[in-house]
Amino acid sequence: VAHVLGPNQYGKAEVRLVTVDRSTPRHEIRDLTVTTQLRGDFEACHRVGDNTVVIPTDTQKNTVYAFAREQGVGEPEQFALLLGRHFVAHDQVDGARIAVDAHPWRRIPVAGSEHDHAFERAGAERRTTTVVLDPGTVTVVSGLADLVVLKSTGSEFHGYPRDRYTTLAETTDRILATSVTARWRYSADVLADGYHFGAAFTTVRTAMVETFAAHHSLALQQTLYAMGEAALDACPDILEVRMSMPNKHHFLVDLTPFGLENPNQVFVAADRPYGLIEGSVLREGVPTAPAVWESVVGFC
Amino acid sequence: VAHVLGPNQYGKAEVRLVTVDRSTPRHEIRDLTVTTQLRGDFEACHRVGDNTVVIPTDTQKNTVYAFAREQGVGEPEQFALLLGRHFVAHDQVDGARIAVDAHPWRRIPVAGSEHDHAFERAGAERRTTTVVLDPGTVTVVSGLADLVVLKSTGSEFHGYPRDRYTTLAETTDRILATSVTARWRYSADVLADGYHFGAAFTTVRTAMVETFAAHHSLALQQTLYAMGEAALDACPDILEVRMSMPNKHHFLVDLTPFGLENPNQVFVAADRPYGLIEGSVLREGVPTAPAVWESVVGFC
Amino acid sequence: VAHVLGPNQYGKAEVRLVTVDRSTPRHEIRDLTVTTQLRGDFEACHRVGDNTVVIPTDTQKNTVYAFAREQGVGEPEQFALLLGRHFVAHDQVDGARIAVDAHPWRRIPVAGSEHDHAFERAGAERRTTTVVLDPGTVTVVSGLADLVVLKSTGSEFHGYPRDRYTTLAETTDRILATSVTARWRYSADVLADGYHFGAAFTTVRTAMVETFAAHHSLALQQTLYAMGEAALDACPDILEVRMSMPNKHHFLVDLTPFGLENPNQVFVAADRPYGLIEGSVLREGVPTAPAVWESVVGFC
Amino acid sequence: VAHVLGPNQYGKAEVRLVTVDRSTPRHEIRDLTVTTQLRGDFEACHRVGDNTVVIPTDTQKNTVYAFAREQGVGEPEQFALLLGRHFVAHDQVDGARIAVDAHPWRRIPVAGSEHDHAFERAGAERRTTTVVLDPGTVTVVSGLADLVVLKSTGSEFHGYPRDRYTTLAETTDRILATSVTARWRYSADVLADGYHFGAAFTTVRTAMVETFAAHHSLALQQTLYAMGEAALDACPDILEVRMSMPNKHHFLVDLTPFGLENPNQVFVAADRPYGLIEGSVLREGVPTAPAVWESVVGFC
Repeated sequence: VAHVLGPNQYGKAEVRLVTVDRSTPRHEIRDLTVTTQLRGDFEACHRVGDNTVVIPTDTQKNTVYAFAREQGVGEPEQFALLLGRHFVAHDQVDGARIAVDAHPWRRIPVAGSEHDHAFERAGAERRTTTVVLDPGTVTVVSGLADLVVLKSTGSEFHGYPRDRYTTLAETTDRILATSVTARWRYSADVLADGYHFGAAFTTVRTAMVETFAAHHSLALQQTLYAMGEAALDACPDILEVRMSMPNKHHFLVDLTPFGLENPNQVFVAADRPYGLIEGSVLREGVPTAPAVWESVVGFC
Repeated sequence: VAHVLGPNQYGKAEVRLVTVDRSTPRHEIRDLTVTTQLRGDFEACHRVGDNTVVIPTDTQKNTVYAFAREQGVGEPEQFALLLGRHFVAHDQVDGARIAVDAHPWRRIPVAGSEHDHAFERAGAERRTTTVVLDPGTVTVVSGLADLVVLKSTGSEFHGYPRDRYTTLAETTDRILATSVTARWRYSADVLADGYHFGAAFTTVRTAMVETFAAHHSLALQQTLYAMGEAALDACPDILEVRMSMPNKHHFLVDLTPFGLENPNQVFVAADRPYGLIEGSVLREGVPTAPAVWESVVGFC
Repeated sequence: VAHVLGPNQYGKAEVRLVTVDRSTPRHEIRDLTVTTQLRGDFEACHRVGDNTVVIPTDTQKNTVYAFAREQGVGEPEQFALLLGRHFVAHDQVDGARIAVDAHPWRRIPVAGSEHDHAFERAGAERRTTTVVLDPGTVTVVSGLADLVVLKSTGSEFHGYPRDRYTTLAETTDRILATSVTARWRYSADVLADGYHFGAAFTTVRTAMVETFAAHHSLALQQTLYAMGEAALDACPDILEVRMSMPNKHHFLVDLTPFGLENPNQVFVAADRPYGLIEGSVLREGVPTAPAVWESVVGFC
Repeated sequence: VAHVLGPNQYGKAEVRLVTVDRSTPRHEIRDLTVTTQLRGDFEACHRVGDNTVVIPTDTQKNTVYAFAREQGVGEPEQFALLLGRHFVAHDQVDGARIAVDAHPWRRIPVAGSEHDHAFERAGAERRTTTVVLDPGTVTVVSGLADLVVLKSTGSEFHGYPRDRYTTLAETTDRILATSVTARWRYSADVLADGYHFGAAFTTVRTAMVETFAAHHSLALQQTLYAMGEAALDACPDILEVRMSMPNKHHFLVDLTPFGLENPNQVFVAADRPYGLIEGSVLREGVPTAPAVWESVVGFC
């Protein structure tokens, strides 16, 4: 029986790159995790181990470090585009997926002033980007991950159907907490030189976080949708937002066995299971891009 | 400007379920992590917080536990099908994605005999399944994750192109190590009552592991492809195999500064970065199923 | 042969507690992970399973939640003292170890103002405390964990001995990065009512972080010691500081194969192995407290 | 005010070492994680950054790899002793703590035979050792970690005191599950050449696991103590065993809302909080060794 090689890609994952811009005494640092994945006609490699056209993943790693020195990293999106265009310029490479996570640092304040060359990690939240290069098309999908937010009121949940397996009590006041992963697909306009990806990131993030805070929630789905709408309204250069938002349950502790009321004051923060709400908001009339999303998320 | 609700799903993630079959003194245990996700017309929930047709994730969790008692869990695939069919029978639910991870235990040997009711965790490897239910079609994709394997010889890597950024030395003898994530898509035949998913799992896993061991490797891609072919050859009920295999690098330590040779004896096991080889093998003539794979892997 | 029961303790670990102070529309939240461990004469339990004097760990958990409601949590140190004193008041309990980790949140800014009831996680760093109660004595050891800091210059390393196994090059300019775990032992004076543990925490943390930034380092040990001295100088109520500081290596990438210089600009952030520097600074004349530290750190 | 340098140590943590014995076609592999920590008069380094007597952690790492080649690794205990004795032979080093974790692999079976050079990871459980060298004395403390075991019956819990905060129901039949960390201190006799640490490990581990299985438990403390006794009875060369055993709660799911009984069949495996039972058993008449245990467990 004959078999066929299906979708495939290969590359170097999680190259840890830190750069220091020392052009002035006030250093700037970038802390990135870079993954490069290449696609093309690698059938001979799969079938008979012929590596003639296989750019080693070690070379890919070296290229990341060399480009960081030669070209500078700039915005994560621009660095990813630079790397992706370099790799697809090879005859044997038809497409690429370059993912960059940026890890946040802030300057340490010393006696009220921000230090020139000392930094502290600013949180676990990451700024992310994935650039997908296919023959004739380049797509930039950026986002954020591990943004943990919580509202101590302003969230209700009721009106849901009840069946034999329903025990949940309705509530008009609960804690709502989640860890947001969001990704937004940019329009092709951002590929022009000098697009301000950093400013766009801040605009989108601010819109989403402010909406989480200000929106009165009847369902986490409603909050998610409102956050997506706010992102689209705030940044005209994005076509679509996808979000994955675990409902990090905070259950009210039943204190009645101890003769105590608990008027929404004492909660247990649960680990598992958790609700998982996932959705997307598109600008009207914009075509969906399933092939891009397949590239952005996991392979297997 | 108007916005549109795009792809979305919601459910309960990582419900931890352990069952004990006590029908004889020789207990059987099952240890599962279950995730249920539902799809349908949830636009009113997203837009105005109308939960009229939203089966709470808490109810989904309850259903998992109640079904485990009422119906038993059986094979992970059968339990996932049972749950999925239950949920899509609701008017408002068009589709579902039910994922089940099975965690392995083995009986503790006491004085040479396996104990009736005492078990030890048999490793970190998981048996996985994702059942995707769409209108008119049900697909079962099963697999394994975190299967860590290593060959101390029988692996070469050379003949690759060299460019300005290539420094890697060619080798005819290296350690090859990886952590296999594999998923295989079953044909619709397995939906018949009484299909032996457990036997199929063992057949596929054995074929893949034996091939990893016996195959002389010129590239991890070649090993991956051979493992996929072996799986298809071993089990006629699977149509396609996808694999994601990090190249867990073991670098030969340079001991020459200490006046020592190192003839492939002392290695450093590196954490990051790692090569990442991903590919799929299909039975010839079988249609691909991109929509299914979109459901199986991550959303965002 | 007879055996003897040695050191032992038991309790409930990692009780996840979130409280909301709703006394004004501007909510305050506390997010704590609480571990209680009790000591006493539990020999009958160990030898014959007699639980007559064993306060169940489930009861300990309930007590945490009930006390949070009845007494409020206040500062982590005060909540730990409250719990510890409650438990050692039982006849059978001779001593206790109560550990509390506090997880940081900050208010979400909306249009320039901090929101009343919406928060974002402020980082992975934790404020920690362990209260050790023994017959006749109570000790408070507080600290911080996972404070990640980095200097892009102002760090040297040279002058070390060379032996057959030394290959490291000396440097007068390297990146210095670490993840600080620090614990400081308070004097008994802080047990008086109304001690401001929060202010003390801020004072000590600021002294340590500012010293990390401002100190010109010839060795991570020297930086550690200077941080400990600064802590003792800043807060008269602490007797001793212990620190564990991994040297999170940032290696300069060798770009010469690509015809590039690398004047301290492009680094690889390594995972493992890492240097591990651990040390303590005591106020002169203060007796050490080995039994307390045994209680603070791990059992086994 | 003057300050004093208190306890301190430094070294290289988590050196990842894999060795292949290729002396016959049937390869043997060792997979170790090695941590070296040195103690001595390092005051000048802490106070003024004088590294004159500070063996760099990089040199320590090199030594691990060079010794693996020159001397072979043998049993983890022997490799740790070798390294420790090498380091304390330096004038400036008074003591050392060498910790080695061994990661298990097993041969891949191919057509019923174990393969010569292909292996699969045999689980997450680790064999551990810590060798503590102080002036005039060397102590070996070995153990295991992450041994996860479960009994589906044969465990009771009742007879405990009830106070205002007690809600737990008594039970005569529950699931008992734990993840064992155990460490045993060897007598000085094992320092003689050729002691069979591997055989001792197997003897102690078997005694503990078989006891977990066979022992009818009235409390996890009782199980722990019985396991410690069994270890001491099985291996005359160990003086003391310490164990840390989280009670991995498996709660019976209340199915009565769904009209179902649940006769100990369906359980939720909880993450947090968990009971934490820690204790030790000593051979009668053996002196305790608090300074050794301080070295074995964490610093801060």
